[in-house]
Amino acid sequence: MLALCFHDAPRMLDVDAPEPGPGEALVRVTRAGICNTDLEIVRGYMGFRGILGHELVGVVESAPSTGLVGARVTGEINLPCGACPSCAAGLGRHCPHRTVLGILGKDGCFAERITLPVANLHRVPDDVSDEKAVFVEPLAAAFEILEQVHLRPSDRVAVLGDGKLGSLVAQVLLTAGGEVTLVGRHPERLSIAAGRGARTALADAPLEGRSFDVVVEATGSPSGLGRAQDLVRPRGTIVLKSTFHGRPEVDTARLVIDEITLLGSRCGPFAPALRALAEGTVDPSPLVEAVLPLRDGVEALRRAGEKGAGKIQLAMP
Amino acid sequence: MLALCFHDAPRMLDVDAPEPGPGEALVRVTRAGICNTDLEIVRGYMGFRGILGHELVGVVESAPSTGLVGARVTGEINLPCGACPSCAAGLGRHCPHRTVLGILGKDGCFAERITLPVANLHRVPDDVSDEKAVFVEPLAAAFEILEQVHLRPSDRVAVLGDGKLGSLVAQVLLTAGGEVTLVGRHPERLSIAAGRGARTALADAPLEGRSFDVVVEATGSPSGLGRAQDLVRPRGTIVLKSTFHGRPEVDTARLVIDEITLLGSRCGPFAPALRALAEGTVDPSPLVEAVLPLRDGVEALRRAGEKGAGKIQLAMP
Repeated sequence: MLALCFHDAPRMLDVDAPEPGPGEALVRVTRAGICNTDLEIVRGYMGFRGILGHELVGVVESAPSTGLVGARVTGEINLPCGACPSCAAGLGRHCPHRTVLGILGKDGCFAERITLPVANLHRVPDDVSDEKAVFVEPLAAAFEILEQVHLRPSDRVAVLGDGKLGSLVAQVLLTAGGEVTLVGRHPERLSIAAGRGARTALADAPLEGRSFDVVVEATGSPSGLGRAQDLVRPRGTIVLKSTFHGRPEVDTARLVIDEITLLGSRCGPFAPALRALAEGTVDPSPLVEAVLPLRDGVEALRRAGEKGAGKIQLAMP
Repeated sequence: MLALCFHDAPRMLDVDAPEPGPGEALVRVTRAGICNTDLEIVRGYMGFRGILGHELVGVVESAPSTGLVGARVTGEINLPCGACPSCAAGLGRHCPHRTVLGILGKDGCFAERITLPVANLHRVPDDVSDEKAVFVEPLAAAFEILEQVHLRPSDRVAVLGDGKLGSLVAQVLLTAGGEVTLVGRHPERLSIAAGRGARTALADAPLEGRSFDVVVEATGSPSGLGRAQDLVRPRGTIVLKSTFHGRPEVDTARLVIDEITLLGSRCGPFAPALRALAEGTVDPSPLVEAVLPLRDGVEALRRAGEKGAGKIQLAMP
């Protein structure tokens, strides 16, 4: 089958289709999304080698439980061992022995077929299109913030970065009723958020410093945390979403002096993300910039890496 | 009066005694403690110029409310403006217009006399010696952790750094009933903590990685945060206590992946610290290495800066 692989460089290769292991389903991928994490992997993040990709929707071709065959599904990307203390504590997404689809020790979804444990699959409601369903994984990562932080309706929230993730985060946080300001560099992206009820600000516009209760850092840039520190109020919360290859210099003394809570935030729950898509409380469609066929995977990756690119999706044959 | 001043270098100078402003008391300092923050200021931290020192006990010589005259007191170090939204919200310690005794825009207590707002003063119980009472400020900073984090009796806690603050933190956290391990480089300091019920480990001894629910970083070193990240479990909490001049490189991606909560923690409540000293639940006395007369302030500062030094106190004439 055709797959977008990364070894020394991203390449389209013809590889063997995967064989489902015990408890795994074989899924025919119909649509996949390119995430900034894929671009970071190509820059060396995580040291991953193999088939890229972790945002997907597809159709189950085979499964241990036959009721799933033919179902349209999306899939959680962490594959826990199921046997360690983390897993026993319900923290499978933090299992130290986990593999992660297209990120750590498990071939990803920029391919015609993947295998995933049945426990990782979520049925996609009929009225959620493939185009939208591919957003479930990053949308779940946005909902993770609401799992971690009690966002009060009276809170002033800033989201830094109007990339794909930042834009989804702004939409999700608006559902909590607070005042949400999306800060970014792309007027067209900001206007999408404004249409959903967010305040917006250009990244170089002055904003009242030390005034936001919660600041979400989703710039993908090493400088984002410093900017978040400028905006958050003393005793406020910074949610860190960006992962990249490298170690930024951090003004830790300022974290201490202002008694900031810095929260690392990664993958989230799929169920509320699917509900939000089905109910239309979040609409990621305007973020889609282009849909390319899988065979143009290398070109798709290049386009996704262009400054200010929207979501690039891959459609499978 | 005699005072230990910092302009380009620490020097003993003869300066005018301070004049109390409105609402302020004049306090004759009887004992003061040297803190790592004083040493950092001499290295450039905070850009402070003036009389150093913020840990003190003394006797009120004059005050707007005459009932205070003659009282033995210790003093909170943040002087809020009292009129801004932070102050109105009860966050005077985070008032953006505040001055801070011996740290920011306010002469400190390595002197014969200081002025402080009456609201900052706390009476010291008769049965708490001057030697112990000087510890109220750093002890309050240790109690701040319990204000910020719900420490469960079943939690495993590591405290990194057996300096003065780390040693006090270990004693304070033991009062919450969890398993506390103090990690440091000084066997004699570790044995004091062991005597209070802490587990101890030498800094270069192997400890089970990613196994602690809460890790307190009190090493005062830029490398402390990385070590804390090695020890904390996924979804665990790191409390950051160290302030120093400089910006360490931080593996922020690991904070995101492991969804760590990083909490900056600074000054804390004086009342529980005074209670703990009066009741003996915390005993800082074994941490005192030497008591020098104020006139030997420069030498005292030098000794406090020696590797592994205990608490150096200044006794006023």
